[in-house]
Amino acid sequence: MPQVFRDARATTPLTLDLPVVLLSHRGPVAFDRAAATGERTATRGAGGLVTALSGLASHLDEAVWVCVAAGSEDAAVAAEAGGVPVQLALDPEPHLLGEDEQDSRRISMRLVEIPPEVHDPFYGVIANPLLWFVQHRLYDLALSPSLGREEHAAFEDGYVVANQIAADAVIEQVQQVGGRAVVLLHDYHFYLVGDLVRKACPGALVSHFVHIPWPEPDSWRVLPPTMRNRLLGGLLGCDVVAFHTVADARSFLLCCQELLSLPVDRRSMTVSVEGRTVRVRVYPISIDIPALEAIAHTDASDEHIVDLDHSLGTGQLLLRVDRTDPSKNIVRGFQAYDLLLEEHPELLGKVVFLALLQPSRQDVQEYADYLHAIGAAVSTVNAKHGTGDWQPIDLRYASDMALATAAYRRCDVLVVNAVADGMNLVAKEAVVLNERDMVLALSEATGAHDELGRFAVTLHPFDVAQQADALFEALTMPGQLRRDRREHAALIVHRNDVRRWLTVQLRDLSELRTEGPV
Amino acid sequence: MPQVFRDARATTPLTLDLPVVLLSHRGPVAFDRAAATGERTATRGAGGLVTALSGLASHLDEAVWVCVAAGSEDAAVAAEAGGVPVQLALDPEPHLLGEDEQDSRRISMRLVEIPPEVHDPFYGVIANPLLWFVQHRLYDLALSPSLGREEHAAFEDGYVVANQIAADAVIEQVQQVGGRAVVLLHDYHFYLVGDLVRKACPGALVSHFVHIPWPEPDSWRVLPPTMRNRLLGGLLGCDVVAFHTVADARSFLLCCQELLSLPVDRRSMTVSVEGRTVRVRVYPISIDIPALEAIAHTDASDEHIVDLDHSLGTGQLLLRVDRTDPSKNIVRGFQAYDLLLEEHPELLGKVVFLALLQPSRQDVQEYADYLHAIGAAVSTVNAKHGTGDWQPIDLRYASDMALATAAYRRCDVLVVNAVADGMNLVAKEAVVLNERDMVLALSEATGAHDELGRFAVTLHPFDVAQQADALFEALTMPGQLRRDRREHAALIVHRNDVRRWLTVQLRDLSELRTEGPV
Repeated sequence: MPQVFRDARATTPLTLDLPVVLLSHRGPVAFDRAAATGERTATRGAGGLVTALSGLASHLDEAVWVCVAAGSEDAAVAAEAGGVPVQLALDPEPHLLGEDEQDSRRISMRLVEIPPEVHDPFYGVIANPLLWFVQHRLYDLALSPSLGREEHAAFEDGYVVANQIAADAVIEQVQQVGGRAVVLLHDYHFYLVGDLVRKACPGALVSHFVHIPWPEPDSWRVLPPTMRNRLLGGLLGCDVVAFHTVADARSFLLCCQELLSLPVDRRSMTVSVEGRTVRVRVYPISIDIPALEAIAHTDASDEHIVDLDHSLGTGQLLLRVDRTDPSKNIVRGFQAYDLLLEEHPELLGKVVFLALLQPSRQDVQEYADYLHAIGAAVSTVNAKHGTGDWQPIDLRYASDMALATAAYRRCDVLVVNAVADGMNLVAKEAVVLNERDMVLALSEATGAHDELGRFAVTLHPFDVAQQADALFEALTMPGQLRRDRREHAALIVHRNDVRRWLTVQLRDLSELRTEGPV
Repeated sequence: MPQVFRDARATTPLTLDLPVVLLSHRGPVAFDRAAATGERTATRGAGGLVTALSGLASHLDEAVWVCVAAGSEDAAVAAEAGGVPVQLALDPEPHLLGEDEQDSRRISMRLVEIPPEVHDPFYGVIANPLLWFVQHRLYDLALSPSLGREEHAAFEDGYVVANQIAADAVIEQVQQVGGRAVVLLHDYHFYLVGDLVRKACPGALVSHFVHIPWPEPDSWRVLPPTMRNRLLGGLLGCDVVAFHTVADARSFLLCCQELLSLPVDRRSMTVSVEGRTVRVRVYPISIDIPALEAIAHTDASDEHIVDLDHSLGTGQLLLRVDRTDPSKNIVRGFQAYDLLLEEHPELLGKVVFLALLQPSRQDVQEYADYLHAIGAAVSTVNAKHGTGDWQPIDLRYASDMALATAAYRRCDVLVVNAVADGMNLVAKEAVVLNERDMVLALSEATGAHDELGRFAVTLHPFDVAQQADALFEALTMPGQLRRDRREHAALIVHRNDVRRWLTVQLRDLSELRTEGPV
């Protein structure tokens, strides 16, 4: 029986006898105004991280979730609240709770306003694309990035200031509960917050979770020392720095060693800094299976299955579901499929590659270029192999969970060939929902490969020939082997679902309290 | 007094009581036929490595240098010799020695023929660009490389076969001296040779020197395991693997640990593999100072100085001397200079940036594109700031050592801003020859920065704003500080010249014999 964790203490109840303050860029709900009625609307935030944190925040009584006001209506809610957290309920539809309303799964959310002249450079110059590109190693280093005065100013007047604003809100929440709290900071937007919180609230236990790949020092050297050393220093202000994979954690230790000359211990996964010990930990994030199954088993999803069955007949379905991010490696995936069809003409007319792609960050040139490259690759493959009855690639730009879950249920091969991916939750969603013993074709460069690689066909992201061979292996794998592997993979995800991800972290933090500064 | 090495045993005589077999892709001499007379001509090989190895080979009595026949006349010489080394003299002009001719600095060279159908993929697909790009981290990883059947075939039928051919010649030379010899293998063309030689000649002491940057495991993961693991395995067949910098050596150890799961010891710089201990060593390569000074102090060089003085008047000269390789970071250098002139109009008309560039590998698309980007950058700067009397950038495509040495002597700032460079000998040449207390502006990503960084203005290669500031600092540095720094840097190069580079290696290999397998 596969074991993701050494122990099985996931049944520990999800509690913590300290208040919790969460920080992430996006929050559980976004507010808007309905165009027709002018009434305030509330929409649940998308994405695996927000889903995971919503689970956490709704299970803890004393938790406040600090996040950035995204639009003008978020800002209006923040202004009305005057720095006090608002109370939310997520079910059945997300809504603000009135003062006398009760809800057992109430979430306290504090929206922080970051002025556009700060948020634009913070988010649009530094966090995306600079940090995202550095951490996914997407730069064409011969020419980009070319860091000029604008980028330095964006760091100082955008990233640093936005981090201070977020830190101030977190600090205020911690001080309101007497300075003793567990502070859970999230992702690449807020690397500087940990150190600020620790200095203001020495009684707090501070953890920072990095959800995207942490590359080795070579890649961080793309940033000048004025940036890279401060980002590292910010994280090292925390008690715990957490990642999805052992490789990411080891790269972080290596950065502390090589870039800051700090003593690290690879065995205990710790860094010594100014007399303190910073723990580096690994918690692979996962999915909320009941919530996913609720979306997947709807009439809309069932109807999509009927449509897919109708158009495929006895044919096999390859599937990918991705944002159009260069890190997702969509173009090489189509090149591999092209080679597969060229070398295996017996597959012509018998397979379809359904690509459900969500356009992403089209204001960034590299993303616009990448969208064009995707279109060009699809045209090449469909023009070369397609017929009036059959187009080998079915590309749909959409963010349609009913369709995606139907495709997860129906597909024969799920293709995830990312050049770098912190985790990749698509792989976990598909193995849980699939009803046809699909084969997972999974890049070695995803966090998910650590857990699911043994039950997948491994893809090497830069090797189109190997990917073509692997896709052929996946399409022709015998039934019993497909079944065994898919079932084992699903079991792993069921064992380490998002609740366990949260529970194990909180358990570890509880244990740390006995040795830590709290 | 600065110390590059801890000890000072450089006076050990350059001897070794074992025969030496050298291997490098290019050799000390290339043969051709004069168009006019049809007579065979011989030209000395260019480049720092060939210069360094020529010094070694000419000082050792029992040394054979195996290298690849580069053109048809090299092949003719190889065929006439029938597998037996030919005897060369390099001075005063390179020439083949007749059977009864004597020369105290005779070099034995064995030219190896590699058929074009092997050499083309070996050299033109794998060594350059694939390994060069991976090791200098030059790929735009979102789209390239895209490894297909051609690249896999080029590895198997090109790189592997060429390495076997070279290994066969080396093995034959080792066997001819009874199987006991010191084998010195060089650079990224021949990573597989070490293991082949060790297996055929267990009595040989095998060393491989890597002259280009060795990146961390993330970068090697661009290659599929079928390639990356075999390249590492080839090197681990050696007794010693040598690099120019500690960072490169540590990255190599990390690759053994992370990619092959081998036990490494960072303190002793060793890897354990199949019961053997592989030593990882650091020897920063250097220059042949007397040979350089002979070139620099000629009438031709003096005339160039007069010309430069005439055109510059009291102005300051910034200089760069590079191949047009994307790793050299020429475009960002001009962007930084543009920013410098924009922010310091007092410099307009008072400085010239002389760029002596040697066009390189124009059959590779990325290099052709880069040449265009260089031209575009120069046009931008000169059109923006230039006048009828003064063009801020003086770009000359040339490989003219008389001009280069004159410019080294005359320049006020030498600019080396490479994104990655194993050593960079231009920096060492310039500090030794310069006659005007020039400031060295040196990228932190060069091997030379380890030795000379303390006496240079450091450049961060991706940070154009920082480079502009650093160039301003260099141009305005007070005279005494310039003098002290240039003199210290020159002293370091004089202490660790190419003879010392060779001596220390041979001394270490001699010591290894007492513990090693020989």
